[in-house]
Amino acid sequence: MPTSQGKVLIAQGGGPTAVINQSLVGAVLEARRFTKVTRVYGALHGVRGIINEEFVDLSEATNHNLESVAQTPASGLLSTRDKPDVNYCREIFKVLKAHDIRYFFYIGGNDSADTCRIVSEESQTEGYDLRVIHIPKTIDNDLKVTDHCPGFGSAAKFVAQAFIGADLDNRALPGVYIAVLMGRHAGFLTASSALARTYPDDGPHLIYVPERPITREKLLADIASVYERLGRCIVAVSEGVADPNGNLLVESDEKDAHGNVQLSGTGALGDRLSSWVKAGTGIKRVRADTLGYLQRSFLGCVSEVDQREAREVGEKAAHYAIRHGLSGSVAIRRIGNYAADYILAPLSAVAREAVAMPDHFLHPNGNDVTPAFIEYVRPLVGTLPTVTRIVAPPVVKILNKEAQK
Amino acid sequence: MPTSQGKVLIAQGGGPTAVINQSLVGAVLEARRFTKVTRVYGALHGVRGIINEEFVDLSEATNHNLESVAQTPASGLLSTRDKPDVNYCREIFKVLKAHDIRYFFYIGGNDSADTCRIVSEESQTEGYDLRVIHIPKTIDNDLKVTDHCPGFGSAAKFVAQAFIGADLDNRALPGVYIAVLMGRHAGFLTASSALARTYPDDGPHLIYVPERPITREKLLADIASVYERLGRCIVAVSEGVADPNGNLLVESDEKDAHGNVQLSGTGALGDRLSSWVKAGTGIKRVRADTLGYLQRSFLGCVSEVDQREAREVGEKAAHYAIRHGLSGSVAIRRIGNYAADYILAPLSAVAREAVAMPDHFLHPNGNDVTPAFIEYVRPLVGTLPTVTRIVAPPVVKILNKEAQK
Repeated sequence: MPTSQGKVLIAQGGGPTAVINQSLVGAVLEARRFTKVTRVYGALHGVRGIINEEFVDLSEATNHNLESVAQTPASGLLSTRDKPDVNYCREIFKVLKAHDIRYFFYIGGNDSADTCRIVSEESQTEGYDLRVIHIPKTIDNDLKVTDHCPGFGSAAKFVAQAFIGADLDNRALPGVYIAVLMGRHAGFLTASSALARTYPDDGPHLIYVPERPITREKLLADIASVYERLGRCIVAVSEGVADPNGNLLVESDEKDAHGNVQLSGTGALGDRLSSWVKAGTGIKRVRADTLGYLQRSFLGCVSEVDQREAREVGEKAAHYAIRHGLSGSVAIRRIGNYAADYILAPLSAVAREAVAMPDHFLHPNGNDVTPAFIEYVRPLVGTLPTVTRIVAPPVVKILNKEAQK
Repeated sequence: MPTSQGKVLIAQGGGPTAVINQSLVGAVLEARRFTKVTRVYGALHGVRGIINEEFVDLSEATNHNLESVAQTPASGLLSTRDKPDVNYCREIFKVLKAHDIRYFFYIGGNDSADTCRIVSEESQTEGYDLRVIHIPKTIDNDLKVTDHCPGFGSAAKFVAQAFIGADLDNRALPGVYIAVLMGRHAGFLTASSALARTYPDDGPHLIYVPERPITREKLLADIASVYERLGRCIVAVSEGVADPNGNLLVESDEKDAHGNVQLSGTGALGDRLSSWVKAGTGIKRVRADTLGYLQRSFLGCVSEVDQREAREVGEKAAHYAIRHGLSGSVAIRRIGNYAADYILAPLSAVAREAVAMPDHFLHPNGNDVTPAFIEYVRPLVGTLPTVTRIVAPPVVKILNKEAQK
């Protein structure tokens, strides 16, 4: 389909990731190669910046600056939590039209895909020539169509490295260690902690995700059982875990901007589980960490696979829109074990609804993942550093006294 | 002084660090070079493992295994929280004697130095030829004599990278972000968050350490002032911060094994500060993370300077004891900007007492560090990854509408 001469506008929405700027830079650098692209604008603060016309002219950014930005985590163009409705999208559309924007790229999750869908429909209704591409991004890995989401692999790698370290620490000073991970509805990130296991007794020993309800009784029985066997226990739990009635286990009356119970940025769930374990099992050393924003923002922990794919979904967005005249959502397809290619899904197929972990990734016991999940996730995190235990024979005792317990 | 033929025993005590195994492996590999060393034993679980005679024979560990262990964070020989008194040390001494141990190396903090001191004195009283070396280790950086402690640089690097990421995240989605860091009495680790600053408006904007009392009023006024200026605020706070009466700000009735209020492994302080800020300033988006055990255990964030020095204090221990027949605590001396060499301090000079941050490292305002501290800490963390902002000119507005706030 022939496409118009005009400007490109790109923006970033929702929570940042370690590689979201790779997608930004991929789209910008590819877009700048097309002569029919007169300018490449970036909107600051996502859709809110579009309405405010807070644009920077990325045509004038140097390649080196952009390549350095690509290596920088979090949204280089800044972000927003605004979820546009139809009226908001009409305002967006007016601004796009006023600035002769003919290609609009929005990097984000399912809400951002929905914004793209509405803006695209608006342009069709108005007969204005506009291509709209949703570029996927989320550490939650909960988008439809795509095999997995850019941003997830790096967050999963952070989680795996955190658990490898926590497990070594807990072996040195044993006890129960509970780590609370991001994931309101989808347990992918929490489940990725399973990549921390090398030796058979490595943690995490128990993994709880929002897809499987848990009860206090089951949790305590599970932990007591592991502790009896190993003298220690590492637990990975999603912030969004709920009981069989669907009630969140976290106690909090804080609501976020969308009226949801605030889960991130508080240690409430970890502390609650910790006090349950202390009271319910009699185990003395119980510690809980909430990994918090580090999961998506920590500098210096990036999956090289995730980095490459985040770059390519951005590059593909430019080609789909400008070369091929298409609108849609870029999705990743898995080929063998492991390569990836890219397809363009209809915006409506990705918008709004999120996905949870499929059943065959979760162990029937409700406290672990399956080998199928490990096979799915391993190639996405790239190379993990290895750890080693001392291999040396025991020495025969001479005095055979026992230390006072 | 001529030294005896006999065995070496090495153990690790207290909280693990990212580089404590470098010290272990440095000491073991150097010790194995001396023909008068008949065997090199490792005690599992620190001093407790000595009393239990839980030894492994590190003479039989391969070089490659040990080199891989050196790269692995946390105590490869496992650890203990036991703080031996004189009677406990006598039990240790009996075991050392039974096994013909002539060189005892204990890697740990000031309590471990005290154990070394008592065991060394016991051997002198008994006329048993024993060299005892304390190898320094602590992320708190609170040992006497030494310029800084192995383990600190890597933890400080983790903290800096965490804050660089958190600051980028907070720029993208502004609000107040509070991170609680390890440090009961010494603020070195919290203060290291200042290394995250590159641009003048980079966080952390406020830094609170145990060396400076804070009040709720001052904290809220400080945060409100930064927030008014920048529209956001990043706060670094030590878990051990206290009010002017010396009362901890954390509310907790949990005690650890030593009867101290449990500070790590709970989100209580962060959540409390967070609710203060919400209630006291009216700022809506307030998030608190407690960086927790990741600070000392995260896999894949090591200062190359710290790594090298941790290795060398271990190597030096072997030479001081076996070649030179000395007992003492290995300490690092800073030379210029920046090299290090090593001296041997008397065990009694390092044992028991810890140090806090000197006054000239702390800003009189009580909410920041000084340039002198930055100069002190920068060489210890080694190379930090850099981050970049987009450099592109603003675009002239056409519609000039303001988005609904």
